[in-house]
Amino acid sequence: MDTSRRNLLCGLGGLALGGAVAGLTAPAMAAVDPNAPAGRFSQVNGEFGWKPHKLDPAEVAMVAYDGYWYKGYACGYGVFYSIIGLMGEKYGAPYNQFPYAMLEANKGGISDWGTICGALYGAAAAYALFWGRKERTPMVNELYRWYEVTKLPIYNPGDKATGVKGALPQNSSGSVLCHISVSKWCYAHKIEATSKERSERCGRITADVATKAVEILNAKIDKGKDWKGTFAVQAAVAGCGECHQTKGNDANWAKGVMDCTPCHNGSKALADKFNNHP
Amino acid sequence: MDTSRRNLLCGLGGLALGGAVAGLTAPAMAAVDPNAPAGRFSQVNGEFGWKPHKLDPAEVAMVAYDGYWYKGYACGYGVFYSIIGLMGEKYGAPYNQFPYAMLEANKGGISDWGTICGALYGAAAAYALFWGRKERTPMVNELYRWYEVTKLPIYNPGDKATGVKGALPQNSSGSVLCHISVSKWCYAHKIEATSKERSERCGRITADVATKAVEILNAKIDKGKDWKGTFAVQAAVAGCGECHQTKGNDANWAKGVMDCTPCHNGSKALADKFNNHP
Repeated sequence: MDTSRRNLLCGLGGLALGGAVAGLTAPAMAAVDPNAPAGRFSQVNGEFGWKPHKLDPAEVAMVAYDGYWYKGYACGYGVFYSIIGLMGEKYGAPYNQFPYAMLEANKGGISDWGTICGALYGAAAAYALFWGRKERTPMVNELYRWYEVTKLPIYNPGDKATGVKGALPQNSSGSVLCHISVSKWCYAHKIEATSKERSERCGRITADVATKAVEILNAKIDKGKDWKGTFAVQAAVAGCGECHQTKGNDANWAKGVMDCTPCHNGSKALADKFNNHP
Repeated sequence: MDTSRRNLLCGLGGLALGGAVAGLTAPAMAAVDPNAPAGRFSQVNGEFGWKPHKLDPAEVAMVAYDGYWYKGYACGYGVFYSIIGLMGEKYGAPYNQFPYAMLEANKGGISDWGTICGALYGAAAAYALFWGRKERTPMVNELYRWYEVTKLPIYNPGDKATGVKGALPQNSSGSVLCHISVSKWCYAHKIEATSKERSERCGRITADVATKAVEILNAKIDKGKDWKGTFAVQAAVAGCGECHQTKGNDANWAKGVMDCTPCHNGSKALADKFNNHP
């Protein structure tokens, strides 16, 4: 009796046993459930209402790497679990009630589309459980600017490597986009995008991003509103933005703060490859 | 007594009242909590374990549009809430226990970086609560390919418009990236990226993406494994992929299935704008 009552009252954790019942009668239950949100757009625990906890970057790196390989759930899952999942292991709810596999959608830059590096999204999503836009954006900027300019991967699991053991070549991607990050690395080092080396590279970058993300998170917890990032806005973003992101300018049409140079550089890679392949 | 006990046992829903207690004693509690996951990488309700429910696309469109404007939480929040939040309003837990504001991270293509259109991410994330990779990827492909080629925005809230009332110009973005989608629309129609018109455009596209996403979701629920998308892979992705995404090819270095043509077309916009601005 107590068990079924708990299922009626509990949220994410209750469906495992109470799913069949909830499926039939949930609308009426929701109306009397003391744990239901108050109305449209309201949410339990409040928006950005979770309490952040400091984590050990070395432990986070290992869990992120292992998370990358767990059932192939990959980069976004690895980073997100290494932060929120580890908090769940150490502090219980609400962290351990999250449906982590949702972050598998990030694999390959969102279902293989090659958009944002899923590892980077996983970190932004984790931050967004704790901090609203104003405080979070500088944290995201710091992580993403670091990613653009840092030679990756750095992490080396040694003999515990799941894919390929030993050192891997590094480069700086210049971009937060999965397509550019992966393709430039593969092109530079003559490694196939579908190879085990490339998978291992992304597993290690998952650990690198998680490490940096948690260093930022720990510093933010320590310094609060006084925390500031160390990476300046990219020269191209600042320069191009003087016209293309300034109110009242006829050319104020550009959205985004990705470094402009990987795409707006007139390189051979950006020539008309579809109609006039060299 | 019963209230505090419920807080100990419940997950996401329990922190509102029990947060202070959980912060102090959660590690021990987690060990005996019957709603805690079984171990590392396990999760309550199972991976991709939520039950999907059909929704009314017209209701979803309205909620997505309103969600876009709710506290400026924008596109990803709007689409995600219009699916998972509406299921929460109708069916209770686990849907209504989700920390929806997490999706605010998607605003401006992830904290203004201009990567993936946040509305598109919101839909992929919602799908990932219900379906694993193999079944979900064709759904994401259908939605994203539709977005690349469809003239948007379509939705018109009429007199209920929050930003700018009346018709807005349409175009097809050719890209799932926020930067390209927004910038091409602004450039084509001589509308500033920081204008109310542009915000309204993205609010309506939030409704459009949610509508299409739920049409796909409803059809998937009806047809199950027999569901198939209608949009073919883009000509450039198929053509370029013959070398750049084929195992064993020396040029197999490309990750992603975004349409290649917006960037690899040799257009003036891709010339060396930083060093040699025309």
